[in-house]
Amino acid sequence: MIVVQKYGGSSVADTDRVKSVAARAAKARREGNDVVVVVSAMGKSTDQLINQAHDIAPEPPGRELDMLLTAGERISMALLAMAIHEEGHTARSFTGSQAGIITDAVHGKARIIDITPGRIQEALGGGHIVIVAGFQGVSRDSKDVTTLGRGGSDTTAVALAAALDADVCEIYTDVDGVYTADPRICPTARKQDTVSHEEMLELAASGAKVLQVRSVEYARNHRVPVHVRSSFSWADGTLVVPEEDHMEQAIVSGVAHDTGEAKVVVRGVADQPGVASRIFTDLADEAINVDMIVQNVSADGTTDISFTVPKADGNAAMRRIQALATELGFGEVVMDDDIGKVSLVGAGMKTHPGVASGMFEALAEAGVNIEMISTSTIRISVVVREADVPAAVQAVHERFGLGASDTTDAREVTS
Amino acid sequence: MIVVQKYGGSSVADTDRVKSVAARAAKARREGNDVVVVVSAMGKSTDQLINQAHDIAPEPPGRELDMLLTAGERISMALLAMAIHEEGHTARSFTGSQAGIITDAVHGKARIIDITPGRIQEALGGGHIVIVAGFQGVSRDSKDVTTLGRGGSDTTAVALAAALDADVCEIYTDVDGVYTADPRICPTARKQDTVSHEEMLELAASGAKVLQVRSVEYARNHRVPVHVRSSFSWADGTLVVPEEDHMEQAIVSGVAHDTGEAKVVVRGVADQPGVASRIFTDLADEAINVDMIVQNVSADGTTDISFTVPKADGNAAMRRIQALATELGFGEVVMDDDIGKVSLVGAGMKTHPGVASGMFEALAEAGVNIEMISTSTIRISVVVREADVPAAVQAVHERFGLGASDTTDAREVTS
Repeated sequence: MIVVQKYGGSSVADTDRVKSVAARAAKARREGNDVVVVVSAMGKSTDQLINQAHDIAPEPPGRELDMLLTAGERISMALLAMAIHEEGHTARSFTGSQAGIITDAVHGKARIIDITPGRIQEALGGGHIVIVAGFQGVSRDSKDVTTLGRGGSDTTAVALAAALDADVCEIYTDVDGVYTADPRICPTARKQDTVSHEEMLELAASGAKVLQVRSVEYARNHRVPVHVRSSFSWADGTLVVPEEDHMEQAIVSGVAHDTGEAKVVVRGVADQPGVASRIFTDLADEAINVDMIVQNVSADGTTDISFTVPKADGNAAMRRIQALATELGFGEVVMDDDIGKVSLVGAGMKTHPGVASGMFEALAEAGVNIEMISTSTIRISVVVREADVPAAVQAVHERFGLGASDTTDAREVTS
Repeated sequence: MIVVQKYGGSSVADTDRVKSVAARAAKARREGNDVVVVVSAMGKSTDQLINQAHDIAPEPPGRELDMLLTAGERISMALLAMAIHEEGHTARSFTGSQAGIITDAVHGKARIIDITPGRIQEALGGGHIVIVAGFQGVSRDSKDVTTLGRGGSDTTAVALAAALDADVCEIYTDVDGVYTADPRICPTARKQDTVSHEEMLELAASGAKVLQVRSVEYARNHRVPVHVRSSFSWADGTLVVPEEDHMEQAIVSGVAHDTGEAKVVVRGVADQPGVASRIFTDLADEAINVDMIVQNVSADGTTDISFTVPKADGNAAMRRIQALATELGFGEVVMDDDIGKVSLVGAGMKTHPGVASGMFEALAEAGVNIEMISTSTIRISVVVREADVPAAVQAVHERFGLGASDTTDAREVTS
């Protein structure tokens, strides 16, 4: 088997944790696998480097910020190679550039455009455990060092697994799998054995922190089986697999929530072509990531457009839209960051039309008011008051029978 | 002009020092120069990385130790690029590999075998200040990251200056030049305006800490003018130049001393061919760096062989030689680490035969006993008791009139 393992910053936070990761990689190698380990920077070291940069420059040039931040994985991967050496195996560490992670040139959030894993394959052929720096690559044209943005190590791992035709991509983290809801607010939440790529994509986009959206997209597009599991235990976690391999096909697979967004409402917008386009093009220019967008039918020739954005982008979004006031002639724009989003996700939903009404009914019975609704084929999301989020998650979780009796060991949160 | 500037770890010890280096590089650029800055890791960060490595592995694999240590310059050079950006200039930082520093594959003490500075020249052509990570390169065959060993940043700078045909290589350090002796033990020591490459080579090899021997060798072989100066002041330092450009040609140029060595004496060695060869081949196999070797004429068919080694290697040298006892049949081997070496260096010495006797006379008058003597064409070195080193340096310094009256500002030590 070819196994790609990815360890996040908390899994390599100090030299003891590095040794424990080395033991895990060595075990996989002793079991006869070809092992590729993708590793993040240690603990909070990336944040420390960012602070040093901001000591010097409020807005450091992207090329140089990427050069700086990639020092983090360089340190963790070299230490891990030494620890594997102590385990009696040989290891070869490779930077993103050496590993053939080719990206575009957008510093700070580069996208992988190709993988040329020749050196990795050669090292695997030599019997070595291969270690690859996560989060980083090299730009195709300028040959400059790039970073993939936060959470990019997940994407590195999945992309390498695809390029190497690996049997599984194991994502080690500080939680032990994907849950039916966040166990911190829903005590009956249950760890799932499998979810489909599509479900995981919707869960991640709806606030589940366990995997980055981009890595799940990549896994889906390249049909890479992903195993989400804890680096603090040997228990199986959750398998994320192509839909047709996903046997249990429950109607719904989990409830996710997200309290990191704010709602913006533009009132009294002229109901004519081009207005929405103008607003969202301007927001895209500011690199503001708009999530839910809701526009209802018009009553008196004007309409209201509502959308959600990350709280951190709320003020920038407000400024940008206020600048359009004269041109577009809308009534007012207001922001509300006291909201939360609750999403129900399930591949079976496509063929079960009663799911949405069941969710709304459960919320009504729990006394939770719905402020916005948005749906995809396998997800229903609602915006509610932030204070109502726990009650909403519990009500929906219970309504669809997602809980289990033996959840006392549900140790940590995921979705 | 093309100017290569090199800043050591103490010159970039914290973000404030990094800003001050940026101001210096920016000034050189504003004066119309093409500027290449070679930078070391910040302060003690290399030592910290080594400690982390030893937390994990007592003898980490060299390839991975090099991968680890090169993170240090990556951080300092990226921060310096940001600081230069804040000064209103543009900068591009390059790793050793990106800068085309091609080495052999001896991890931890690689030698530069070629420089392919295409990307540097392109960036200079684009008007950028170029920053290059010191101390590191990439091996020609395996394409692995290598380090040049301690002090390797000096060599990086000189080698780049040679490859770029730079007008000067400025080595910034925490002392303000090359002195006629160490001002800490010789208060009349005087900063020298110029010394020749050959003299600098002998001074560095004799214990002057201001430049690494290898970088001086490189500078001599490629005729690179080196300007040793302080990063804490704007005063001129000492120019190290080819001999024929060295106008003042004093008979002697400085007194160096070294208390970091131990003396080993092998007594009663059979005076026959092959014995010395056998001893020193064995020591070379242990990578023990032997300095002075003295063997006197034989009296009774046996002789004594004395040599000096770094104190840290003394015990290993003793063990290795004791293992030869039966085979070579010598009397005994003893070590003495209570010694110091005092060297007088001067290009004019070649044509002035009285220098050695003058030095011995001065030592005799000061009551200093000479234990070993070794000479080159432009250097005379003696081994004396360690406690006698200050008196010996002062006596020789005075004898050859090296002092000056205006030396109250002699701030720091060099030779």
